[in-house]
Amino acid sequence: MATVTDITVSASINSLSALLFLVAFAILRLQPINDRVYFPKWYLKGIRENPSTCGSYVKKFVNLDVRMYLRFLNWVPAALRMPQPELIDHAGLDSAVYIRIYLLGLKIFVPIALLAFAVLLPVNYTGGNFQTMTTTMKMKDITFGEIDKFSISNVPPESKRLFAHIVMAYVFTFWTCYILYKEYKIVTDMRLHFLASQIRRPDQFTVLVRNVPSDPDESVSEHVDHFFRVNHPDQYFLHQVVYNANNLAKMVDQKKDLQNRLIYYTNKHERKPNKRPTTKTGFWGLWGKEIDAIDYYTEEIEKLSKEEIAERERVIDDPKAVVPAAFVSFRSRWGAAVCAQTQQTRNPTCWLTEWAPEPRDVYWNNLAIPFVELNLRKLVMAAALFGLTFCFMVPIAIVQTLANIESIGKVLPFLKPLINKESVKSFIQGFLPGIVLKIFLLVLPMILMEMSKIEGYVAVSALEARSAGKYHLFLLVNVFLGTIITGTALQQLKEFLKQSPSEIPETIGVSIPMKATFFITYIMVDGWAGVAAEILRVVPLAIYHLKNIFLVKTEKDRDEAMDPGSLLWPITEPRLQLYFLLGLVYSTVTPILLPFIIVFFAFAYLVFRHQVINVYNQKYESAASFWPDVHRRILIGLMISQFTLLGLLSTKKAANSTPFLVALPILTFWFHRFCKKRFESAFRKFPLQDALIKDTLERATEPQLDLKAYLKDAYIHPVFKGGEVELTPVDEEDDHHYLVATKRTSRQAGTQEPSEHIGANEENALGEEDGKSEENALGEEVGNYEADTLGEDVGANDEYALTEDDGSKDDALVEDVGNIEDTGGVVK
Amino acid sequence: MATVTDITVSASINSLSALLFLVAFAILRLQPINDRVYFPKWYLKGIRENPSTCGSYVKKFVNLDVRMYLRFLNWVPAALRMPQPELIDHAGLDSAVYIRIYLLGLKIFVPIALLAFAVLLPVNYTGGNFQTMTTTMKMKDITFGEIDKFSISNVPPESKRLFAHIVMAYVFTFWTCYILYKEYKIVTDMRLHFLASQIRRPDQFTVLVRNVPSDPDESVSEHVDHFFRVNHPDQYFLHQVVYNANNLAKMVDQKKDLQNRLIYYTNKHERKPNKRPTTKTGFWGLWGKEIDAIDYYTEEIEKLSKEEIAERERVIDDPKAVVPAAFVSFRSRWGAAVCAQTQQTRNPTCWLTEWAPEPRDVYWNNLAIPFVELNLRKLVMAAALFGLTFCFMVPIAIVQTLANIESIGKVLPFLKPLINKESVKSFIQGFLPGIVLKIFLLVLPMILMEMSKIEGYVAVSALEARSAGKYHLFLLVNVFLGTIITGTALQQLKEFLKQSPSEIPETIGVSIPMKATFFITYIMVDGWAGVAAEILRVVPLAIYHLKNIFLVKTEKDRDEAMDPGSLLWPITEPRLQLYFLLGLVYSTVTPILLPFIIVFFAFAYLVFRHQVINVYNQKYESAASFWPDVHRRILIGLMISQFTLLGLLSTKKAANSTPFLVALPILTFWFHRFCKKRFESAFRKFPLQDALIKDTLERATEPQLDLKAYLKDAYIHPVFKGGEVELTPVDEEDDHHYLVATKRTSRQAGTQEPSEHIGANEENALGEEDGKSEENALGEEVGNYEADTLGEDVGANDEYALTEDDGSKDDALVEDVGNIEDTGGVVK
Repeated sequence: MATVTDITVSASINSLSALLFLVAFAILRLQPINDRVYFPKWYLKGIRENPSTCGSYVKKFVNLDVRMYLRFLNWVPAALRMPQPELIDHAGLDSAVYIRIYLLGLKIFVPIALLAFAVLLPVNYTGGNFQTMTTTMKMKDITFGEIDKFSISNVPPESKRLFAHIVMAYVFTFWTCYILYKEYKIVTDMRLHFLASQIRRPDQFTVLVRNVPSDPDESVSEHVDHFFRVNHPDQYFLHQVVYNANNLAKMVDQKKDLQNRLIYYTNKHERKPNKRPTTKTGFWGLWGKEIDAIDYYTEEIEKLSKEEIAERERVIDDPKAVVPAAFVSFRSRWGAAVCAQTQQTRNPTCWLTEWAPEPRDVYWNNLAIPFVELNLRKLVMAAALFGLTFCFMVPIAIVQTLANIESIGKVLPFLKPLINKESVKSFIQGFLPGIVLKIFLLVLPMILMEMSKIEGYVAVSALEARSAGKYHLFLLVNVFLGTIITGTALQQLKEFLKQSPSEIPETIGVSIPMKATFFITYIMVDGWAGVAAEILRVVPLAIYHLKNIFLVKTEKDRDEAMDPGSLLWPITEPRLQLYFLLGLVYSTVTPILLPFIIVFFAFAYLVFRHQVINVYNQKYESAASFWPDVHRRILIGLMISQFTLLGLLSTKKAANSTPFLVALPILTFWFHRFCKKRFESAFRKFPLQDALIKDTLERATEPQLDLKAYLKDAYIHPVFKGGEVELTPVDEEDDHHYLVATKRTSRQAGTQEPSEHIGANEENALGEEDGKSEENALGEEVGNYEADTLGEDVGANDEYALTEDDGSKDDALVEDVGNIEDTGGVVK
Repeated sequence: MATVTDITVSASINSLSALLFLVAFAILRLQPINDRVYFPKWYLKGIRENPSTCGSYVKKFVNLDVRMYLRFLNWVPAALRMPQPELIDHAGLDSAVYIRIYLLGLKIFVPIALLAFAVLLPVNYTGGNFQTMTTTMKMKDITFGEIDKFSISNVPPESKRLFAHIVMAYVFTFWTCYILYKEYKIVTDMRLHFLASQIRRPDQFTVLVRNVPSDPDESVSEHVDHFFRVNHPDQYFLHQVVYNANNLAKMVDQKKDLQNRLIYYTNKHERKPNKRPTTKTGFWGLWGKEIDAIDYYTEEIEKLSKEEIAERERVIDDPKAVVPAAFVSFRSRWGAAVCAQTQQTRNPTCWLTEWAPEPRDVYWNNLAIPFVELNLRKLVMAAALFGLTFCFMVPIAIVQTLANIESIGKVLPFLKPLINKESVKSFIQGFLPGIVLKIFLLVLPMILMEMSKIEGYVAVSALEARSAGKYHLFLLVNVFLGTIITGTALQQLKEFLKQSPSEIPETIGVSIPMKATFFITYIMVDGWAGVAAEILRVVPLAIYHLKNIFLVKTEKDRDEAMDPGSLLWPITEPRLQLYFLLGLVYSTVTPILLPFIIVFFAFAYLVFRHQVINVYNQKYESAASFWPDVHRRILIGLMISQFTLLGLLSTKKAANSTPFLVALPILTFWFHRFCKKRFESAFRKFPLQDALIKDTLERATEPQLDLKAYLKDAYIHPVFKGGEVELTPVDEEDDHHYLVATKRTSRQAGTQEPSEHIGANEENALGEEDGKSEENALGEEVGNYEADTLGEDVGANDEYALTEDDGSKDDALVEDVGNIEDTGGVVK
């Protein structure tokens, strides 16, 4: 148990290291040579010029202006100065809302901390539990840290002081919910406003349709075209089929890699013109025959280019390369909103429509997964996630045992003399297990991302959201619970299954106050120093300079070498949630932890605001669609805090308080449900009214807009972008008032089998009621019907391929229905 | 523990009583005087004539044809003869699908029983656990029933025989899921086919919109009209506002009651013309001044009629009597389907649209509940349901203590001598607590229905579905768990909280085999005899004859006196689920219970098929929308059976089996999710394709259809039906191509405040990008925006009250947008 001095020392060490990072950053960012590392966003926007174009040679690399070093902290006001609307415009709504999460942390915890310090600290400090314990029991060997004097542990059992904690739990819960509600409202408004004021984007007009049923007579493209022409007659505009271009994309990547190598060797050759650079044909150029590198790579690229062109043509010509999914565009946003929100056919597993993601947000590989497979994948991945979360220590432990001293000695015998030295041995033995764990934790987000990919989400944003959810669960179980109840998660699970449900909060509740000092240290190391390291960008700095030396030839190359990175949403957000959780849990138990959390939130807000403005370049814009997740996770934290307090108080024998405290999580859960109903649809659906307003305005202000040209190539697989081959089979005329000709009409005379059922349907719908005879017909029909599969059913339905003609509507329709009656007449 | 003889005796007694009921039914149904009690459905359909019109006087009341008595069981083949399609046509899809549940029970349990008898019975019987126990331990005082020899209890712990039970658990689970899947598919198809072949109904064209925001300038009716004209320009047709006519409805009921009394006294007077009947003015005519009854009631009815007319006028004239909800009809089913499935505005708590229920299915009182109140009500009702389920014995016990002998003696001292007799005393003491419980159980469904009403559902079908859910929970906790673990539910809950999660299935598992005989008796008493009582219809029989004597004067009166009743869905379905649960739980444990369940299902199928054909008259038709609930509850039963088996086997020390068995509920849950995705939307949404097909056909076959006349009065509160007062303000012309004139235009010049924000919005949307200056403007605006409430926002949006004009579309639009820019120009 730590004393206040211990904490102070730790705090100063961590503050110092954070400060060191900041100073390093302040110096490095002033050097023109690092300009593209610390301000890439401005380069990408084309606003910032290369600093090397003017000034002396030295000035190109090192900043000699002393005055600028004196104002080395001036990035702080600069980061804070940009107003929010400008920030949204500059960095996108996602980033602007993301940094609001830190602000939200401040809004929640500053008042809570003030109140807790004013009320709970005195109550705890004068509780005198430890004094009585030490004096009465003469337990000199147990020393209580000074921190613990400020915590609830210092309040004796059955004390009336505990009433203060219960009241505070209510106050904190209501305050948190109030702030969360307000924030949800603000973010919802920001999102809706952002969507409303957005410029025209192809995804506003487009719907992604998946699980297009296969049709023996028509290609996917024709089938999609006919289906939407019939079912959305006035609104359907055009569609783009999706090609399975995964192979091609691989080739393009490979070619890029080869080109990079070629450039590297060409540069090398330019620097030393007298010596042709060589490489080896083996793996990574490490072994094999030595050959001339430039010639080799030029040849390889040419070979790959030819293959790529062949593959490109194959993909476009092969009907099997078309996956049963398509992007369907509508004449107006209203039409797209309608199509995205409605069910198209009676079979809910085909013709599934949803809003199309932004073109750059589409995850192309997952567009073709059939319905049943998708469900199976989700089942398997749920099991895998469970295994990963609760058994993750098992493989780690195995790797750690394999990677111990003895086995290293066996595999690499020449290292034996070195290893056998005692100092080296102990170092490795202390170091290796840790590094294995560290590597696993670094790799974990990637594993989770792959799992999400297997689950079959079609947008990168959805993939990231799902990964974040998985990571959050992992951190909750392995970091929070894992720290509180020492032991692996699997052991915990066993323990929990054996304990009674009311004992679990007790177990956690008892050890919560004891872990306060650990978590304070954790906040300082992971939070304070970690955030400071974020601003320094050590890894991108190194990579940029390496690339600069080996690859960069032109200005364009330099632009490409610049890696602005992005907010790593699926990693940072779950980690951030841990701070909310800690703050909420300790707010009633050990309020002295709160200032550390507040410092973290304030500092992180500053740093990330700076990064968002100057560095990060988001890959897509989801218009803050992640907010419901953030909100939900904070509420999960709140409920955990309530349960732990419940457990803690029940060990303090304050049994009468249980009913009061049980009400809290119920109310919190209700609040969650309420917010979900109140706000979530703004993040999932697009209201018709807003769509109509935008449509109307656009039609009025830009009556000449060529929407077709705008939408035609919007959803093309990136590898086809800028390709020479014409892709979408564009309709000849922009005339949608016509009967859809289907190839099936030719089949009507021959095989009447599949239309029998639907024919019977109509006969009924025609409304002739002639008693028994009709009922019998109905009888036969339903008999058929039950044996029928839904799939056939839909196929039969499609025979109604007719649209309305505005002009001579009724005539055309009568004709059509005449046809239908022909096909359906077989029953009578 | 019962022997086979005990069970046989009990079975014969119950079979006999069931047979007696059946014989009574067979005799009573042949009497012409009872014809309207046992065949009301045919009278309602107008197919059956009154039998009293021909034949002698005696024949009018008693059937003297002996041959008919000989064939007294001929209702059985008659009930089975009607084919399903005819049944659907005759009784509706709800009834036809409901009796399929019994068939489903047979489909599931007959193969399971055969397999269990072939495999598990021999395995159990030769297990020999009891023999070893009795011989080794000399426990002669514990006698094991013969039934138990056939149960899993007879298999010794750690026996390899238990493997058979695990395999069978898998087989049974897969069989049940397979049958459930097939049945879900059939019912889905039946429903879709039923909807597709249905004749035109107003609810196909109509959407219920709730939470219409209030508007200072417009009435609810105008507001609804303008909103839908703008947002569904081509499809909106007309709307009907909803009046708060609860008071009026009460008056109408009261009047009917008075009229009944008047008829009663008039009849009395006719029979004894020499004496004017008298009544008393006090409560229920029991005390007060004696007056002439006919005059009194004639007067009262006249008075009430005047009041009613006044109230009727008040409701129609008073704008405050209009609730913020409306029924909005569309030109086509497609339009209604689109509107019902989409979100209208950015605020998801207003303009909520959903499919309108059938007119006779609407529950009018709940149409006006605001969003937040609705959520609060649900929270309170959830708490109340929890209390009712787990503490229901508390009030019962209190009533029982109050209603004991001593307190009766105190309240009614004149009974004292009687009570003090020993025999009477013991009879009352044994009888009263039972009757209190019985009364409570009879009242319970009504209480649950009232709770559902408070929760605010707007359709009677939804109310019944919710009540059924509540009743199911109640039966599960209090009948199933309550029998297995003796004690009140509250005690059980306490017990469970103290036990560890893995112990709970053990506790249940251990006592499951011991309760088999009890449940067999339960099935025979409640199932066999109960179903036989259902067909006898004792209560409707009595009521009909009473009414016939005192009230009936004309044929019409006799029609009204007939009470066909209906399938009491919220009561019978949850009770039925108990049999599925018992069958599934005991299929692996004590398979000897299965034949009793099978007899129940077969018998109930027969009886209910007869009732559905001849008796019940359903109040509404939901097109089998209850099926997802049935499906889910059977799966809940399946999962409970899996958990109990898990617990039972863990007490048998077959710990190795746990992983095998844990997989079962997970797979079952996944199956539930899969079915939900696969089928449920067919029960919640109406696909656009189907809507379009029906629309197209109708337009072709009935081009002259006057839809307006058809829809105009469809959704009028029943008390206004046939009223003299014109209700819906019908639009003058059927011309929807015009600009909507709102009263707000006059406000534009004066107060520009509320339009400021939206003005800024447009400016942005106009696409002028001039860097900083715009960003600043945006800054101000978002500042405003955050402080803005969504309510105002929507108000401001409405200012875009413009629709498209097909002819000179663009011009009109440009004009409109000109207006908008005027209003919005204040920002610059």
